Amino acid sequence: MIRPEETTGLLAENHDASLAALPASTRVYVAGELYPHLRVPMREIALSDTKSFNGRIEKNAPVRVYDCSGPWGDPAFTGTSEQGLPALRRDWILARGDVEEYHGREVQPQDNGYLTEKHVEFASKSERANKFIEFPGLTADRRMLLRATGKPVTQKHYADQGIITAEMEFIAIRENMRRAQISNQKDDIVRNQLDKQHEGSTQNPTSPYTPSIFQRFPQRIPTEITPEFVRSEIAAGRAIIPLNVNHPECEPMIIGRNFLVKINANIGNSAVASSIEEEVEKMRWSTKWGADTVMDLSTGKNIHATREWILRNSPVPIGTVPIYQALEKVNGKAEDLTWEIYRDTLIEQAEQGVDYFTIHAGVLLRFVPMTASRMTGIVSRGGSIMAKWCLSHHKENFLYTHWDEICDICAAYDVSFSIGDGLRPGSIADANDKAQFGELEVQGELTTRAWAKGCQVMNEGPGHVPMHMIEENMAKQLEWCHEAPFYTLGPLTTDIAPGYDHITSGIGAAMIGWYGCAMLCYVTPKEHLGLPNKEDVKVGVITYKLAAHAADLAKGHPGAQYRDNALSKARFEFRWEDQFNLGLDPITARLYHDETLPQDGAKTAHFCSMCGPHFCSMKISEDVRQYAAEQGIAEEEALAQGMAEKSREFAEAGSEVYVPA
Amino acid sequence: MIRPEETTGLLAENHDASLAALPASTRVYVAGELYPHLRVPMREIALSDTKSFNGRIEKNAPVRVYDCSGPWGDPAFTGTSEQGLPALRRDWILARGDVEEYHGREVQPQDNGYLTEKHVEFASKSERANKFIEFPGLTADRRMLLRATGKPVTQKHYADQGIITAEMEFIAIRENMRRAQISNQKDDIVRNQLDKQHEGSTQNPTSPYTPSIFQRFPQRIPTEITPEFVRSEIAAGRAIIPLNVNHPECEPMIIGRNFLVKINANIGNSAVASSIEEEVEKMRWSTKWGADTVMDLSTGKNIHATREWILRNSPVPIGTVPIYQALEKVNGKAEDLTWEIYRDTLIEQAEQGVDYFTIHAGVLLRFVPMTASRMTGIVSRGGSIMAKWCLSHHKENFLYTHWDEICDICAAYDVSFSIGDGLRPGSIADANDKAQFGELEVQGELTTRAWAKGCQVMNEGPGHVPMHMIEENMAKQLEWCHEAPFYTLGPLTTDIAPGYDHITSGIGAAMIGWYGCAMLCYVTPKEHLGLPNKEDVKVGVITYKLAAHAADLAKGHPGAQYRDNALSKARFEFRWEDQFNLGLDPITARLYHDETLPQDGAKTAHFCSMCGPHFCSMKISEDVRQYAAEQGIAEEEALAQGMAEKSREFAEAGSEVYVPA
Repeated sequence: MIRPEETTGLLAENHDASLAALPASTRVYVAGELYPHLRVPMREIALSDTKSFNGRIEKNAPVRVYDCSGPWGDPAFTGTSEQGLPALRRDWILARGDVEEYHGREVQPQDNGYLTEKHVEFASKSERANKFIEFPGLTADRRMLLRATGKPVTQKHYADQGIITAEMEFIAIRENMRRAQISNQKDDIVRNQLDKQHEGSTQNPTSPYTPSIFQRFPQRIPTEITPEFVRSEIAAGRAIIPLNVNHPECEPMIIGRNFLVKINANIGNSAVASSIEEEVEKMRWSTKWGADTVMDLSTGKNIHATREWILRNSPVPIGTVPIYQALEKVNGKAEDLTWEIYRDTLIEQAEQGVDYFTIHAGVLLRFVPMTASRMTGIVSRGGSIMAKWCLSHHKENFLYTHWDEICDICAAYDVSFSIGDGLRPGSIADANDKAQFGELEVQGELTTRAWAKGCQVMNEGPGHVPMHMIEENMAKQLEWCHEAPFYTLGPLTTDIAPGYDHITSGIGAAMIGWYGCAMLCYVTPKEHLGLPNKEDVKVGVITYKLAAHAADLAKGHPGAQYRDNALSKARFEFRWEDQFNLGLDPITARLYHDETLPQDGAKTAHFCSMCGPHFCSMKISEDVRQYAAEQGIAEEEALAQGMAEKSREFAEAGSEVYVPA
Repeated sequence: MIRPEETTGLLAENHDASLAALPASTRVYVAGELYPHLRVPMREIALSDTKSFNGRIEKNAPVRVYDCSGPWGDPAFTGTSEQGLPALRRDWILARGDVEEYHGREVQPQDNGYLTEKHVEFASKSERANKFIEFPGLTADRRMLLRATGKPVTQKHYADQGIITAEMEFIAIRENMRRAQISNQKDDIVRNQLDKQHEGSTQNPTSPYTPSIFQRFPQRIPTEITPEFVRSEIAAGRAIIPLNVNHPECEPMIIGRNFLVKINANIGNSAVASSIEEEVEKMRWSTKWGADTVMDLSTGKNIHATREWILRNSPVPIGTVPIYQALEKVNGKAEDLTWEIYRDTLIEQAEQGVDYFTIHAGVLLRFVPMTASRMTGIVSRGGSIMAKWCLSHHKENFLYTHWDEICDICAAYDVSFSIGDGLRPGSIADANDKAQFGELEVQGELTTRAWAKGCQVMNEGPGHVPMHMIEENMAKQLEWCHEAPFYTLGPLTTDIAPGYDHITSGIGAAMIGWYGCAMLCYVTPKEHLGLPNKEDVKVGVITYKLAAHAADLAKGHPGAQYRDNALSKARFEFRWEDQFNLGLDPITARLYHDETLPQDGAKTAHFCSMCGPHFCSMKISEDVRQYAAEQGIAEEEALAQGMAEKSREFAEAGSEVYVPA
């Protein structure tokens, strides 16, 4: 191990872009009521004034948006990666009095893939460099936490007891973004216009245009999210709060179909490339753009060390697939995996603070032969490892046979389950087949058993599914898994566009989010082709953020349309800066505008490059509106009549389509 | 005017990328039967052999795909932009004996926006440069064509008479791509595997997961597209073939919901930027990537000259919005527009060969006040021009009052209608409102009247619509417009992602394509922000191509899945080059792979950067498959039983998860 000061060079803070505040944005905090010490972070976007063609000036209230970036997104925060984030939730957890501190398991060389001296010798230069970078920031007095009694320390257990935790109130405030915005506004007219929202499918379950799933499995999205509603959804198993007691740095968030649709970004070094530093920065970068959770899918060397750096710096829940690390510990031989090695890995990761585990316990022996006739066999890494193990031993999947013990471990740290879909389709051809749905039924059984142990559960889903077969996935998952949250990868809706699979899958993601999927695992443009770089991560996150938001609109999540309205109004009023800043990616939006009209003046001009300075449909629209306002008539019929009289006058005034350049 | 040789420099062939053949691709032609002279172009992608882990080698038949690039995509073609494309259809048209040659209208300075000498004087340098570039290639002996009798010369008129034209057979062959592929294959096993396809919503109208629109308005997609089927769909008004008799360079294509979903790319210079040269190249570039039609939305100066260059070089139908040019002729004053000026513009453009006109005849006076309370008023340029005219004169829209005369002009050249949606929503907030649907009903009335004149008609649609309100748009259009083809812009499913509106709208486009929309107008990443450059055009086209294909899969278009299957099989078998080449954008796919694994060897390696050389889920899948094959048992139950005996043997053989690096 080298000392902290020596790591500074290696983990140089190469993340100015991650830390730079988004334009016109400030960090604000909203306090709790049940728990007054809570400070729920939001990003507030300041807007410029409306200046209409007739010279009228109106203030526009700032818009608050959900913010996943944690302390990294607060300009007042001065910490570094080496120090890690403050242990926000440590006191909340200790105050519940049901955990004890203990000295955790010692880190072994094999936790980082160094099974023998030969492994060290043959490691690549970058692997060896990473090997010596232990996270320096965790002080000796911060010990591991573990349940102190026989009872689970899970949010589900508390919810089942009727307890509203600080985490639940934090989430209620966070999810109520819109109402926080509106209460902040003074101008009723502006408020009412921006608050206008279409009824969603949730509010119209019997419309002929509402997918049938809304009648079979109604969504219950209240006008206001209360802490009690959060509790009740957790208790019902319809939502989870993935928060390990050993990841106190994490800000609470919720995954459930009666809440905002969430997205996950995958990071992780692989045997081919990338360093710890890069992965920490990708985590920070992805949360800046809106990743609600991050999965560390590292393989190869230094898995433990990489994860430690990520966890200590992550304001969002971190998920892993523990079988990846277990496989490294047996030198990659799936048939050498044992329950004991796997269990040790679970404990190792639970002590570090992993918030949710993907566990492929539904890949049963009898399903494996069903994949032989597939177009693309088994494409899940976890699924294929377990299939290989089952085949080799001709025994049932040990994750399935040890499920109750796995639940006990997770209940002791509040690690949520993300029950894996190891047999998910890897191509359009294999969608919705017997192997996939066979496993999904078992996921349902595992869900029930985990709930009985007090655990929080979501289920993973596909993958590659043509549009017309997506709803069936959602319906079967809700039915067979008893409305536990669904968490899907895409799905991709066609296989013919490698290089654009963020889009082929963004289509499927938006649709399944509408149908009720609670979290969407992002896909980057590099999917199937290579490892995503920072730009790819950003494009993946933004694509999924817009897909999740499109789903919120379609579901009818109260207040979801507020941001669309604010942006549309800015667009209509040629408030270019506001249009950029209200978008998911202000930097790119401004850059695109600059490409055509780089002059500063163009950002305040009442025209755009599409039509040029001499013609503007927006101007004409304002003529219509102004005309209506002048007449003081809101009724369309009256207006049409009034226009008969005024039309000559209007023409004589010579108002022009052209706006002076 | 300058002579052709002098233009070479200005219109330098800066389009190597457009003309370069796509990798592993050759141009093939399929002959007609009714019309043996037909040569229907397709692109054939050669594939490498399958080399399995056990050393088995299998040939993979080449895959044929739909090709929009015309002669520009044929390496044997040696023409230039200055010469234009060959007049492919001129003889077909003359052979029908119902047109006559005549000297068309003289081109006026005002056709290009030069109303006075002052206009010339104040034109920018680039505008003046463009002014003198007349298209040099049209020989004096090629005169305008016009109907010679009182009868329409439209494909609809022929279809109504029971006549199958050469264009119809061309289209039948073109749409039957898959069958052409399959008949080309010798290996039944490969064929059957690749031919596997899920039933689409068309085949399952009563499934609970099929949108209700499939029961109300069934899609009738036959297993084989015959020339007679093409004819019958044209006669029924459910499809159009946009082909002006004066655009003989164009290859026939069809727009209708019982055919492959088509996409349109918009190009056009604006008052702010871009030259004729750029626009011609954008047209060629967009057809290379798959644009089925191109709209020239030029404004400002040199509209006529730009259009001439585009038409003479375009292998796909060209659409325009004639009111844009008419407005230039009255110096931008909407209120100065007259029927006479507009009519002259229609004739001017019909003589040039424009294949379809967007005409905003449904923007009625009574709808205009309905837009006053909107979030974003009127955002269609054509719509706002007509609204302004209606307001100024307090008269009914002259496009509406002169509709029958407009139909007569279009019937004389076979210009198809794309009845505009001038009151389409410009924001999520304004979706599906009274103004929009009021206009849609009028579009239906105009459709019926145009059909009575023998014209071909499609209807334009939105715009900005949240996901759950898209199906209603499609249903109302089919009902009110009597199943005429629908042609939508996106729609965007959220407004919060400027810079990513190709994706926000790609989601809506894929969905409405599934529901029955016949053509999707692309949106580029620059939408709302700036003018698209070539890269933006490409991203827009690819995004819409994948959305259209996702829709074909969901509808259940016979053979649509063939290309997905071929690509999935290549992916599963680590045929990297084939995976790239079968995709919509082989260049980008390869580039992304190179970024992580630039070595040549990596393109044939049986691993990828996601997992690295030491682990491969595909390899495990092949183990499973091979095991099943060795047992000679296809039945899953039998296989599972056989595995009981063989499992020890399998384990002893020590087959590894790791593949030798």
